[in-house]
Amino acid sequence: MLSQFASDNYAPVHPLVIQAIQEANEEYAPAYAKDLWTENLDERIEEIFGWGSLAFPVLNGTGANVIGLMSGSQRWGGVIATDIAHINTDENGAPERVGGLKLLTVKAGQDGKLKPEDLERWHHDVGDVHRAQPRLVSITQATEVGTVYHPEELRELCETAHDLGFGVHMDGARLVNAAAYLGTGLRDQVTEVGVDILSLGAAKNGGMLGEAVVVLGPNEATTVASAEVRRLAAAAIPYLRKSTMQLASKSRFISAQLLALLGDPARVAGVQVPLDQRLWLKNARHANAMAQKLRLGVESLGSDEVKVTRVTEANAVFATLPREVAERLRGKVPFYDWADGETPDRVEVRWMCSWCTTEQEVESFLKHLAAAL
Amino acid sequence: MLSQFASDNYAPVHPLVIQAIQEANEEYAPAYAKDLWTENLDERIEEIFGWGSLAFPVLNGTGANVIGLMSGSQRWGGVIATDIAHINTDENGAPERVGGLKLLTVKAGQDGKLKPEDLERWHHDVGDVHRAQPRLVSITQATEVGTVYHPEELRELCETAHDLGFGVHMDGARLVNAAAYLGTGLRDQVTEVGVDILSLGAAKNGGMLGEAVVVLGPNEATTVASAEVRRLAAAAIPYLRKSTMQLASKSRFISAQLLALLGDPARVAGVQVPLDQRLWLKNARHANAMAQKLRLGVESLGSDEVKVTRVTEANAVFATLPREVAERLRGKVPFYDWADGETPDRVEVRWMCSWCTTEQEVESFLKHLAAAL
Amino acid sequence: MLSQFASDNYAPVHPLVIQAIQEANEEYAPAYAKDLWTENLDERIEEIFGWGSLAFPVLNGTGANVIGLMSGSQRWGGVIATDIAHINTDENGAPERVGGLKLLTVKAGQDGKLKPEDLERWHHDVGDVHRAQPRLVSITQATEVGTVYHPEELRELCETAHDLGFGVHMDGARLVNAAAYLGTGLRDQVTEVGVDILSLGAAKNGGMLGEAVVVLGPNEATTVASAEVRRLAAAAIPYLRKSTMQLASKSRFISAQLLALLGDPARVAGVQVPLDQRLWLKNARHANAMAQKLRLGVESLGSDEVKVTRVTEANAVFATLPREVAERLRGKVPFYDWADGETPDRVEVRWMCSWCTTEQEVESFLKHLAAAL
Amino acid sequence: MLSQFASDNYAPVHPLVIQAIQEANEEYAPAYAKDLWTENLDERIEEIFGWGSLAFPVLNGTGANVIGLMSGSQRWGGVIATDIAHINTDENGAPERVGGLKLLTVKAGQDGKLKPEDLERWHHDVGDVHRAQPRLVSITQATEVGTVYHPEELRELCETAHDLGFGVHMDGARLVNAAAYLGTGLRDQVTEVGVDILSLGAAKNGGMLGEAVVVLGPNEATTVASAEVRRLAAAAIPYLRKSTMQLASKSRFISAQLLALLGDPARVAGVQVPLDQRLWLKNARHANAMAQKLRLGVESLGSDEVKVTRVTEANAVFATLPREVAERLRGKVPFYDWADGETPDRVEVRWMCSWCTTEQEVESFLKHLAAAL
Repeated sequence: MLSQFASDNYAPVHPLVIQAIQEANEEYAPAYAKDLWTENLDERIEEIFGWGSLAFPVLNGTGANVIGLMSGSQRWGGVIATDIAHINTDENGAPERVGGLKLLTVKAGQDGKLKPEDLERWHHDVGDVHRAQPRLVSITQATEVGTVYHPEELRELCETAHDLGFGVHMDGARLVNAAAYLGTGLRDQVTEVGVDILSLGAAKNGGMLGEAVVVLGPNEATTVASAEVRRLAAAAIPYLRKSTMQLASKSRFISAQLLALLGDPARVAGVQVPLDQRLWLKNARHANAMAQKLRLGVESLGSDEVKVTRVTEANAVFATLPREVAERLRGKVPFYDWADGETPDRVEVRWMCSWCTTEQEVESFLKHLAAAL
Repeated sequence: MLSQFASDNYAPVHPLVIQAIQEANEEYAPAYAKDLWTENLDERIEEIFGWGSLAFPVLNGTGANVIGLMSGSQRWGGVIATDIAHINTDENGAPERVGGLKLLTVKAGQDGKLKPEDLERWHHDVGDVHRAQPRLVSITQATEVGTVYHPEELRELCETAHDLGFGVHMDGARLVNAAAYLGTGLRDQVTEVGVDILSLGAAKNGGMLGEAVVVLGPNEATTVASAEVRRLAAAAIPYLRKSTMQLASKSRFISAQLLALLGDPARVAGVQVPLDQRLWLKNARHANAMAQKLRLGVESLGSDEVKVTRVTEANAVFATLPREVAERLRGKVPFYDWADGETPDRVEVRWMCSWCTTEQEVESFLKHLAAAL
Repeated sequence: MLSQFASDNYAPVHPLVIQAIQEANEEYAPAYAKDLWTENLDERIEEIFGWGSLAFPVLNGTGANVIGLMSGSQRWGGVIATDIAHINTDENGAPERVGGLKLLTVKAGQDGKLKPEDLERWHHDVGDVHRAQPRLVSITQATEVGTVYHPEELRELCETAHDLGFGVHMDGARLVNAAAYLGTGLRDQVTEVGVDILSLGAAKNGGMLGEAVVVLGPNEATTVASAEVRRLAAAAIPYLRKSTMQLASKSRFISAQLLALLGDPARVAGVQVPLDQRLWLKNARHANAMAQKLRLGVESLGSDEVKVTRVTEANAVFATLPREVAERLRGKVPFYDWADGETPDRVEVRWMCSWCTTEQEVESFLKHLAAAL
Repeated sequence: MLSQFASDNYAPVHPLVIQAIQEANEEYAPAYAKDLWTENLDERIEEIFGWGSLAFPVLNGTGANVIGLMSGSQRWGGVIATDIAHINTDENGAPERVGGLKLLTVKAGQDGKLKPEDLERWHHDVGDVHRAQPRLVSITQATEVGTVYHPEELRELCETAHDLGFGVHMDGARLVNAAAYLGTGLRDQVTEVGVDILSLGAAKNGGMLGEAVVVLGPNEATTVASAEVRRLAAAAIPYLRKSTMQLASKSRFISAQLLALLGDPARVAGVQVPLDQRLWLKNARHANAMAQKLRLGVESLGSDEVKVTRVTEANAVFATLPREVAERLRGKVPFYDWADGETPDRVEVRWMCSWCTTEQEVESFLKHLAAAL
């Protein structure tokens, strides 16, 4: 496959991640997350996300999400999320089937975001035994449609959630892309705004296999509801990770990947990698930049047939175009449909960039698009 | 950690597996098991296990076991296994919690094996709605106590199971070690004896992350019960793998590992690797040989204090010794306790060898043991 | 509690149902649905719903719904239903938690009904492992907002479902009220239109404890998809009923209730009760008539403050009114809020009639309403 | 069925229970456990079991057990019980399938009892993420083989459990029979010995449909582990009861049955029923007395062919006899096999008495037995 805009999961692994795996391969190490790399990851996560934050490497993104949600919820819990949330649409019911959770969905707007006013209606169900008890709010950052919550939006969502007695989970499969867009660190979108439990993505950022659940440490802003969710989650995850089949035996190889992305093979030698040179950020910035280039290129085609439909903030471009154009283009470069278009003969598609998308690939794609129109 | 006999999961990854990962890292590839490596694995599995056999790469051994068991069972199913089966003792209830299965346990003898006569009592429950419906028999090869079922034993178990209308699942976390001991291929212990669903291990054999569920293809000996289990399993696994959170996005990196172990990086170039040079077999033979060396060394110490308790056939040695000796020895080289010993002051321990255990490590261990006695 | 319009579950049990319980109490009877009353119920259900239809008494309506849905679905199944379906809103996630099912919800219109065009979008997910596999459509008859699907609407829904390869479940908690409204028998809304699995309600119709799941027998119109769902369901329910804790030990007392409602205490003596005199119909007609009387009474108040919001077809009246009026009225006669009203100071309420609502109670309620306005 | 010794579930309902149902049927009452009868039951349970004890009526015994176990356990919990425990053998895996629990079974001795020393081995697994975390001990009183734990045995079990950090659940399907045997009240075997959560049976004691989960109130002996289990359970059950489909809509009819059995239709009029005249005790004493009469009768037959195998303390007699004798006898009076006998041609059977077994029935049974020998 020479080129594609189908998914950031189609990308290969960043060479520095492979190198980190090789370096972790030198000798015996305890299995099941008792190794030195996982210990180092814990330290690194605490540096990044603040005192008391805990990292739990898991095997994939669905696992990170479902464990994160289970950990902060009782058996009768409900999770408030948009109807386009990945946990609702693309995990074949894993939250329901493995977690026994009920998703309480809210129709997402064009920007794909959950709004503070979406939460309040669910508070009405608290204490009603006939209803799933809303317990967590799950936000995806960046969203499934390539938009990014600003820290102020996140803060307001978290405050509203905590005021209502709910905890906040963030599906951070593309948290790094959001950080690159916002020009902030990871902490600013997570710890500082009040998120309680984070699914920290790696695969889409240049990793190979594995992600992490992070339970945030308390700070001065932590409310009672929030502290309770974090306390329960931290106690639950070690057991849930095993019983939901997400504990790797050779766990060091997951932690080593995360360490490589989070910034500091060199740190072991006592030298901190400056923020700008950290791999997660370089990879995310590049993916975002390619999406911007792609978007500008699409717009500069000046075609009435192709309409960009969402703000391009992270690493995806969404557009509608005639179905037959989409099919011709797909014959050249793979990508996925997202939704129906404005009319039956049109379709909304998603073009996804990754850490390894090249400028040439974007340019070539634009030529194919122009030709298909 | 300079040396250990705690677990074959503590071992590093074999360099050829790392190399295969690197070679799989060259360009874009479809995610979620639609890649070329997974396609090649399917072919390879069919060559090894016979026509119609299907491979489904998953993330870890618990996942392989639970998906395998769910795939061949209804929601009201029961799984007959020994009380020491890994699925019963060391997966924190994943079969029950994720799979909704009930384990129907039978006390294992000293050899750790299930016997044909253990199956019959469960047939009495067939059709009784108050009882979990026995549907699958799960056998571990090599067993949890380092013994190996001979093909004739397996054939008899499978025949009895099929005669009773049950299917057969094999937990093959150490199937390779059994093959090395028996001097047979993998097929002889699986397809030829009538196993329906196999968890094919990789991590303990030099892999990094990932295993596979294999549904065996039919042959002339396949009974109706057996064919039904295989048909259901093959249809179910693609959906179960996703909904139980065991589908890797960058799945090519699991398939590449399995391909490297199963024998033929060179095959891509059209040259079959001779059986004797296949990595799975070399690694397994080495681990077994180290266990034999260790056992002989222990026995030649001539101490009344240390008693080898199980036949050493695969890559583990079990022995009882005084608890204080065990503690002194563990201070030098890590290993796990297995069970209580003959008297309260004695304990049964497990010493595990792996593909990378060296002769020097065994000798050094024996010296430490002699000193501790 | 002298009077109420809160729920048809607040009503007492019809005296003939109590009498049937007493008559079933004479001597020993096998437990767990092996008794004569359950056998008679099977016959009765076959008479009513047609050849090959099977009845499975269960303990309550949630049990009937969840077992019905599980029985016709695989572990990776999804159930298409409106967002206001009882299974989605008022069973605390039992379909998800006990059944491991994912609900695929569609926003209901003002009439509370699912439409054939709501089904098609889900067909797109068939075969996509990332998506819950749509397998069943669940319709509530009469709907949660007191409207009734006409047989032609049901037939079209069932045909569309079957054409798409889906089965059809009907939540018939108030099927009897729909039949009374339509002036048809039960079969005309179920067997004749193509429903595959039915939750047959009793408690709201004058019963005490217990309902039934009915799997419909095949007829000439049964499609392949439909036949497969029915076959799976009939085989599964005996086991699911026990394993989901819905099998009564003294099951005869559930079957006796259902027999009393379905029409023939006298039948044992060889005399069929004419349709018009069957208890289910008398009770349902009365409840519906009281709702009509209530609606007419509300409208004849001529107040601009109270607006009836839904067509009154079964036994419920929905209206919006000022919140403070609702509170004053509730101080006199209990009822439940249903939804927000047109403006923040208004609320939509539900007034429910039952088999034992009297004309005096309706008149008294109307006086209280007039006074509260 | 003129006579039977198969099950105490085959018995009809006691007339006073039917009468209580009728008396509860007079007018409207709130649904879903908000009614006056349930409120009265709460008071009654507090009188019987002590301050702070809470009653939660449910639909059947499996429901009471599974909700009780779930309520005191986390999602990764294990339940220690004998291998013959009803929850292990006769609920088709409901604890595993609905509750997601793992049963940690211990081989029962001839007396069917769990012993304090059976608990300790499980303490070793506490904190090991690979193991289900032992959280509750489940005891059946009277046991499945008709024996009765003495309060001193129960106290020792509870103390050991609490010392190990475990809570205690009692399956009290036949608690009343144990009390009748011991000559104590219910509290003496439950509250006073340290039980945390009780499944309180009714059906086998003359009830119709419904049982209760009771969470015991704290007293001076309550340990920290115990208090935590009770606190969690009391908070969880209202939600679990609904989400596991065990909440009756017309719940008053379950509570009314329990009130009738527990002793005081008259109490509403201010008169306490003396212990000796309470229905639960009269019914239980009678059932036990019939079992004693049966046992003595069997022994006085003086046949070498029939051997009583268990101490007869509650309402069951267990005996081995030749299989062909058993079959001849079963042709006359129904009963169930329990286990294999001493030799292949012999079988252990269970003869069960109930509140309505008559002396004539016992005598007639003995005649049939004598004839069959």
